[in-house]
Amino acid sequence: MSLASEQSSVPMDDRGLAYGDGLFETVLVRDGTPLLWDEHMARLARGCQVLGIPLPARDALDCLPERAGPGLRVLKLILTRGSGGRGYLPPASSSPRLRWQAMAFSPQPSRWRDGVRVRHCRLRLGIQPLLAGLKHLNRLENVLARNEWSAPDLAEGLLCNSDGWLVEATCMNLFWLREGQLETPRLDDSGVAGTLRAALLERLPVSEVMATPDVLAGAEAVWLANSIQGVWPVAQLDDAGGTRLANWTIGRAHRHLQAAAHDLLDYPVDFPE
Amino acid sequence: MSLASEQSSVPMDDRGLAYGDGLFETVLVRDGTPLLWDEHMARLARGCQVLGIPLPARDALDCLPERAGPGLRVLKLILTRGSGGRGYLPPASSSPRLRWQAMAFSPQPSRWRDGVRVRHCRLRLGIQPLLAGLKHLNRLENVLARNEWSAPDLAEGLLCNSDGWLVEATCMNLFWLREGQLETPRLDDSGVAGTLRAALLERLPVSEVMATPDVLAGAEAVWLANSIQGVWPVAQLDDAGGTRLANWTIGRAHRHLQAAAHDLLDYPVDFPE
Repeated sequence: MSLASEQSSVPMDDRGLAYGDGLFETVLVRDGTPLLWDEHMARLARGCQVLGIPLPARDALDCLPERAGPGLRVLKLILTRGSGGRGYLPPASSSPRLRWQAMAFSPQPSRWRDGVRVRHCRLRLGIQPLLAGLKHLNRLENVLARNEWSAPDLAEGLLCNSDGWLVEATCMNLFWLREGQLETPRLDDSGVAGTLRAALLERLPVSEVMATPDVLAGAEAVWLANSIQGVWPVAQLDDAGGTRLANWTIGRAHRHLQAAAHDLLDYPVDFPE
Repeated sequence: MSLASEQSSVPMDDRGLAYGDGLFETVLVRDGTPLLWDEHMARLARGCQVLGIPLPARDALDCLPERAGPGLRVLKLILTRGSGGRGYLPPASSSPRLRWQAMAFSPQPSRWRDGVRVRHCRLRLGIQPLLAGLKHLNRLENVLARNEWSAPDLAEGLLCNSDGWLVEATCMNLFWLREGQLETPRLDDSGVAGTLRAALLERLPVSEVMATPDVLAGAEAVWLANSIQGVWPVAQLDDAGGTRLANWTIGRAHRHLQAAAHDLLDYPVDFPE
């Protein structure tokens, strides 16, 4: 295992670069203390197991958040399978590379309070049960989907997979309230299983469901969430052409899930109506 | 555009590493002369157009094969979108990174002559029309598929997509002869459009078809091909569990396509029965 070092590079023959053969995590860190660290480490471990990459010693990971610097930071870890192998065939014995960097981060309180406008993306995610849920380095679909719009007032884009099922947003997970029931898409075939999503599923009665996009128009509330940004209520949903499909008044119905999430991230939970 | 340099590295924030946001080419070079160079440059250009990555000046690419060294070499180019952007969103103006390295290469004449044993893979490729055909850096599916077997006498694994259509092998394209007609899978939804495949489609009457795996058992001949290895006739096809599904006697029916391909690569064309 190569030693982790900030701002480090990888050689051209690293399989993370060559094939996206690796994993990453982006962790919110407040004054050296990571949020949802156990969930991040659990997802990294699961990814290593699926890809057959040796998991770094926990000590080598646990020491990183306190090195991220003071204030609110995002710690990004990249773990690749390292170099070697014959073409796509991984080497019999891998020497993974761990790299990290930390950046200052400022959340967007107005999005917590007032909600966001989102749209459907045209791109449909491929179906790949072997990789679904993992935060691996093959993210071209997310890049292309995010590149579908540039308007700064459009906060996110929603993604279905090639079978037409709702999956997620480009970098956030999706939740909604329907007939009093919290729901989120199943991620068996596509998408990234967010760490905040995992923590919420542990703490709230959220059902993982197969749903098509029309479920959202009938929802009492819709949210986007991840472990960096917290929870954004959705105030307006547009189709891929920019036509409004639905809108919601952000109010009491939105605050319960948000408060549960923000409690986990030490973000504000009070937003007076 | 960063200058290309052999054995160079990329920084941790390079989008090629972070997201697989880039393209690659592996080019056969004989004593400084590249084979199928125009096809490689055409595929790279198409990839740049689809991903919105500025194509390097042709001069910066054309000078590389002669720097690959004497004898038979494989020149690998990696072109990434470079650093920058906000998360998945690409920067408004990219500064791509071009990296290259060259390695000695020895083909396997016994595979040209006697053919190879191949198997079906369990993994099914995701469907992504926006990326199909490109040699992009998101290759985890290929890595996982190639990792399904380790027996050295199994030369390749065949892949279908999630709709069940035949696509390719893990690093080669697939061809077969059926009722006197040369056929190869369409690559509109999945797979990599090989440069040797492109050159053969220009020169021979090959039909691009949608076909399920059962088409192979009834084929008069089956081949795998790429621009590095040339053309391997398929002598035996196994299912994913190792049970033989079909076998072929390698003979005259196999040599026509092979000769056309090997003529393009300056590989041998005569294999006495």
